[in-house]
Amino acid sequence: MLSKAKIKFIKSLQVKKYRKQEQCFVVQGAKSVQELLASDFEVSLVLGTADFFAHTSQQIHAETIEVTAKELTDLSEFQTNDSALAVARLKLNHPLTIRPNTFALVLDDIRDPGNLGTIIRTADWFGIHTIIASDETADFYNPKVISATMGSFVRVEIYYTNLEDYLGKTTLPVFGAYLDGKDVHHTSFGSSGLIVIGNESRGISDSLEKFITDKITIPRYGQAESLNAAIATAVICDNIVRHKA
Amino acid sequence: MLSKAKIKFIKSLQVKKYRKQEQCFVVQGAKSVQELLASDFEVSLVLGTADFFAHTSQQIHAETIEVTAKELTDLSEFQTNDSALAVARLKLNHPLTIRPNTFALVLDDIRDPGNLGTIIRTADWFGIHTIIASDETADFYNPKVISATMGSFVRVEIYYTNLEDYLGKTTLPVFGAYLDGKDVHHTSFGSSGLIVIGNESRGISDSLEKFITDKITIPRYGQAESLNAAIATAVICDNIVRHKA
Repeated sequence: MLSKAKIKFIKSLQVKKYRKQEQCFVVQGAKSVQELLASDFEVSLVLGTADFFAHTSQQIHAETIEVTAKELTDLSEFQTNDSALAVARLKLNHPLTIRPNTFALVLDDIRDPGNLGTIIRTADWFGIHTIIASDETADFYNPKVISATMGSFVRVEIYYTNLEDYLGKTTLPVFGAYLDGKDVHHTSFGSSGLIVIGNESRGISDSLEKFITDKITIPRYGQAESLNAAIATAVICDNIVRHKA
Repeated sequence: MLSKAKIKFIKSLQVKKYRKQEQCFVVQGAKSVQELLASDFEVSLVLGTADFFAHTSQQIHAETIEVTAKELTDLSEFQTNDSALAVARLKLNHPLTIRPNTFALVLDDIRDPGNLGTIIRTADWFGIHTIIASDETADFYNPKVISATMGSFVRVEIYYTNLEDYLGKTTLPVFGAYLDGKDVHHTSFGSSGLIVIGNESRGISDSLEKFITDKITIPRYGQAESLNAAIATAVICDNIVRHKA
């Protein structure tokens, strides 16, 4: 039985202020909850249908409540979910170390939660585990972000910081997409580096341009003025892995 | 002065049924409206702020009404728009001819309007002008689609049809992304063809598999199960243009 207090608690976690206060976030959908249960996140609560629990092989070290599909649907404000929901603890926002011979993404004010989620899913596809994000970037634990990652949030870590300070200290090459950069089809990315992805509307901040060591360009064959931020991320990552291979 | 009848009419065009009945759709935001005015779409109404009209050089052959930013904001249900809005006639859904030596996209039930809009924008970037879509694909004239194209809707045409019938008649090579296809980094795409993009949840329909002449794969270096449909489109397009060049 799902108490009114639990319903109120879960709904409150849609708001960043309450996620911070409670140090918890919500994961929805059978696949994402199963990925969560198999990860090192600390899970405190799992709601699921009888069918979900019958088909979930992961050990659950948390309070579990069997609910109806209707109860879950009522809890879902923006995505269809009639199977499972979990509450887990936020991970500490520690400075991340970038593994040797890998690339990391640097997100310069990616505001749209769907874009951030898609970027995390794309990073996971291309084997990128680390994201450094400006403080103005959408919150990793926003339920729309978690949903758009399609489970990849368990394999990609994010660190929010001031990008000028961060980029001022790095010794890695810093790639950034500009209209007048070097064609990514003919760029040697080397074995490690940072890829700066600019804001949806204005691209890379003027204040960060001085930290870009390698300006790159995705060649354009048509007339669109720009590419969506997540799309640009994917094309750059595909060119990096190709050149590494 | 914006009449109540006009407000009601514009708001009704958010619904497909009324777009079909009136044969009209809505375009929002200064940049998209300017792209529309420079295109061959037939525009019937333009609402704009004094500032918008002062900075718009395109000839306007339509009724124009000067409005306040507040009036526009009140008309916008899902995007920030305080500058301009236009109403234009739908284009006839005629069978499209694919230009020689070009590629076209075939969309197999892309349901999310944001994904469809991003695919159209991406197609425009890579010089693809033609999209063939299943009847279940999101409506091109949905305001969320138009918005996500960032103006590219004026340069990319879409034709809704039954894909089994369509693919059964084509003589072009038909590429489709599968997990066990040929690595796109080592695929020769030739100079023309169709690229089938599968539905967000289930990929390419089983009923279409027999029409795929060339199975391709975007190589994966991490652990995400799949890529977003628009992301996959972009990576495939980038590999096509690279191999054509």
